[in-house]
Amino acid sequence: MKAAQQALAEGILFTDMYQMTMAHVYYRMGLHERPSQFDHFFRNYPDYGLHQAGYCITAGLEWLLNWMETARFTDKDLDFLRQQQGNTGRRLFQDDFLKWLAQHGSFEALTLRAIPEGRVVHPHVPLTTVQGPLALAQILETPLLNKLNYATLIATKAARVSQAGRGRPLLEFGMRRGHERGVNAGARAALIGGADFTSNVGASAALNFPPKGTHAHSLVQLFMALGEGELDAFAAYAEVYPDDCLLLVDTVDTLHSGLPNAIKVFEKLRQKGHKPVGIRLDSGDLAYLSVQAARMLDQAGFPNTVIVLSNQLDELSILQILAQIQDEARGYGIEADDVINRLVYGVGTNLIISAGDSALGGVYKLVAAEKNGDWVPAIKISESAAKTPNPGYKRVWRVYDERGLATADLLGLDDENPRQQEPLLLHHPLEPGVYRRLPQAQISEIEPLHITAWQEGTRHYHAPPIPDLRAVCQADLERLDIGVRRLLRPHIYHVSLTAKLWQLKQSLIASIKNNGGVAE
Amino acid sequence: MKAAQQALAEGILFTDMYQMTMAHVYYRMGLHERPSQFDHFFRNYPDYGLHQAGYCITAGLEWLLNWMETARFTDKDLDFLRQQQGNTGRRLFQDDFLKWLAQHGSFEALTLRAIPEGRVVHPHVPLTTVQGPLALAQILETPLLNKLNYATLIATKAARVSQAGRGRPLLEFGMRRGHERGVNAGARAALIGGADFTSNVGASAALNFPPKGTHAHSLVQLFMALGEGELDAFAAYAEVYPDDCLLLVDTVDTLHSGLPNAIKVFEKLRQKGHKPVGIRLDSGDLAYLSVQAARMLDQAGFPNTVIVLSNQLDELSILQILAQIQDEARGYGIEADDVINRLVYGVGTNLIISAGDSALGGVYKLVAAEKNGDWVPAIKISESAAKTPNPGYKRVWRVYDERGLATADLLGLDDENPRQQEPLLLHHPLEPGVYRRLPQAQISEIEPLHITAWQEGTRHYHAPPIPDLRAVCQADLERLDIGVRRLLRPHIYHVSLTAKLWQLKQSLIASIKNNGGVAE
Repeated sequence: MKAAQQALAEGILFTDMYQMTMAHVYYRMGLHERPSQFDHFFRNYPDYGLHQAGYCITAGLEWLLNWMETARFTDKDLDFLRQQQGNTGRRLFQDDFLKWLAQHGSFEALTLRAIPEGRVVHPHVPLTTVQGPLALAQILETPLLNKLNYATLIATKAARVSQAGRGRPLLEFGMRRGHERGVNAGARAALIGGADFTSNVGASAALNFPPKGTHAHSLVQLFMALGEGELDAFAAYAEVYPDDCLLLVDTVDTLHSGLPNAIKVFEKLRQKGHKPVGIRLDSGDLAYLSVQAARMLDQAGFPNTVIVLSNQLDELSILQILAQIQDEARGYGIEADDVINRLVYGVGTNLIISAGDSALGGVYKLVAAEKNGDWVPAIKISESAAKTPNPGYKRVWRVYDERGLATADLLGLDDENPRQQEPLLLHHPLEPGVYRRLPQAQISEIEPLHITAWQEGTRHYHAPPIPDLRAVCQADLERLDIGVRRLLRPHIYHVSLTAKLWQLKQSLIASIKNNGGVAE
Repeated sequence: MKAAQQALAEGILFTDMYQMTMAHVYYRMGLHERPSQFDHFFRNYPDYGLHQAGYCITAGLEWLLNWMETARFTDKDLDFLRQQQGNTGRRLFQDDFLKWLAQHGSFEALTLRAIPEGRVVHPHVPLTTVQGPLALAQILETPLLNKLNYATLIATKAARVSQAGRGRPLLEFGMRRGHERGVNAGARAALIGGADFTSNVGASAALNFPPKGTHAHSLVQLFMALGEGELDAFAAYAEVYPDDCLLLVDTVDTLHSGLPNAIKVFEKLRQKGHKPVGIRLDSGDLAYLSVQAARMLDQAGFPNTVIVLSNQLDELSILQILAQIQDEARGYGIEADDVINRLVYGVGTNLIISAGDSALGGVYKLVAAEKNGDWVPAIKISESAAKTPNPGYKRVWRVYDERGLATADLLGLDDENPRQQEPLLLHHPLEPGVYRRLPQAQISEIEPLHITAWQEGTRHYHAPPIPDLRAVCQADLERLDIGVRRLLRPHIYHVSLTAKLWQLKQSLIASIKNNGGVAE
């Protein structure tokens, strides 16, 4: 895209066409400024096929709010809408509506409550609630989902990959196969969820965070094409980066060329008083080669060098590599932990696209509209009970047990206070009459999860720096039961309704069924 | 991102960190301006698990070149690089290198040959070749792959989905679950490969192409929450869009509420001289509901209304829906084709993320470097013969048989002319001694696939408008054997080497193996 195209493509027209046609219908009906409420939530954790998530990590709010701050209908946006014609050549958007958009077409009148970035979250919990004029809340649907769904998907994947790697450093390497400009949002989300660094220089610059990287096969190939060899390529790299020397050893033959050559270079660095950083393995049996590389580096007197693994890694392949190292290291005279504790993971494509499940199904549903000064809850009777949204303007609390672990998320109505309920009733989200009773004495904390991120145009949420977001995420993961955190078949975390919300939902469903589709 | 962040994130720093460290090493060695050649190609078609692609469709070149035209090292980019420190606090990039980047750090000195957008392409064929100063060709690797891999992936998916739908209109709906800003590139690629329209207003505006959309469930829910019903919502929509009235009929009950209400509204429109457009089905058994909807609309005298299907569609689900309609339509007194020929497909998530295989593994490999005024081919001996790239500066020809169908893509060296070879020898890419002999009399056309897209800073490729790109793609698909086009287990299209290229590759491999990793 050229700059003028990009301004159109990424400004307030970054939305679905039907948001604009609906906004126009609301305008004609006099409903466009009607106060309304929408919930943003997802219904299912990512399911990667062979493994499943038991939690998600929120991300994307900061960049959503940045976008909302500047998004408004410019003359060029309005020109494009003015040109749009229907089947008979009649304009799709009339001048009075476009004039209203020019005057009121920004997100200043909306209020967003949200769960901040870096938090553990679960299905059916409103991650964001939007309140304000109907037409603008509707136009916001698509960009909000776009900017929160993908970021949350990637923060979640990064947390899983980091967990599989037992907290050893994780580098995000995926921009070459990620989805075009989206990789910048992906890199940021990966850093929030569990990556320690990204190779993406631009995203790092935008976040004022150091990027990481070493060299590629092409460095070695280039020297070879010019009649020199791998050793010359390594020596050249070491000369420029004597204190940051990490060498890719698999261009020719890992054990018989790459590692011996790297060790020769490391020895020269040591003679000059430098500490070599380590090696990278990018092909072959990474578990076996890690063990052999650790042995060779140890024998050469470099026990503190790292071994970076890359090549189509994901959480399962890391799990497998670590299991194999546990099985075979000792047979080669080295402790498995001495290998594992020097590993670093470079994860590219499978992280940035969330391989196995490359989209989070977040949705944005109308839950209430104002009528005669009162909020009237809205509901959609879908084909399944699980898809029927929870009505009304809601709050979310996280309930921690006596051990300080999160035991349930509780959805209730705006005017409820779960601290005042003894015992606290946690209603099953779908099954009538099924609930947990939790005496307040068994509750160590009840934490409201929503903050006011944006109130009638005033922004209240500003993301802390990346290291602080990472700390938020780590703290939340540590307060999660280990069964919920595991990679395969995790325990299902409880998301419950208050008795009051449960009753509201049932009465609305009954009312609609009794009235031929019209709620009363 | 804020604007200043975005400028950093999407400018010339939109690359991997190791490209910068390697460029710095080349600079220190005096190799940074050494003429070099890189090939961009992919090794495998997308494999969606249950189904596989037998071809890909190129896309992304236009926006890559747009990016290359403006990408250069600004003061802010250089400031960020200047701040980067290694393990001992020493700067990673020295001033003389940064000064060189400030003066020469653009892509003006490079030359790109490429296969234009909208073409059918196959594995191992160089889609792009880059020639020019080593450091800049290296920095270009990541952005080139980023902008071509994803776009090609999505154009390919769109072609498949369109094909499954037998050419009936296809709407791209995926921006809410696609990968953040990447969805704009995805929308464009979908339009090239097979989508007729996108719901993405911003991307449409950037392409000066009309966006499409109707209304969502929220329109009906809103009216219901306000004490009115589905019929009122439909009537409101019809009043604003009497000639573009397409109604979503599954909010309450498709057959017992949505369709009867839509028909009532359509009858009123007809009385006023308007032609209703149709309905959309977004849940339930889409095949069964299509048949019933077609019957009901026919009986009400609206045989020309369309039926838009949406809800997690992809090429297999469309195949299944059409098969089911074929099976059951006549039982309900309607011809299957009369149902199928009014269908329109709205495909969201599964198109914009290329569900099943969400990344194309395009790579960018050094193939030659200049030494003493001659090009020296480079090669990497990898663990498998299939991963060993084809060396040297290459050309690609498409060979058409007597029927005018594409029968093979032929890779050869820059100075070859396959028209002068009788018979034309097509060497198997991996198996020694296996080749096809094709008499020139059996060849209807030999088409060079590369154009010069960018020559030393002068841009030669400017993509034609979207309709023309679509026509290029359709023409190529029609010249493909039907067995190669099919959705499941396609025939493998031949990609062959000239005898000369085959011999060069074998001699290089032998030379490296005989010389301990050093080519001679």
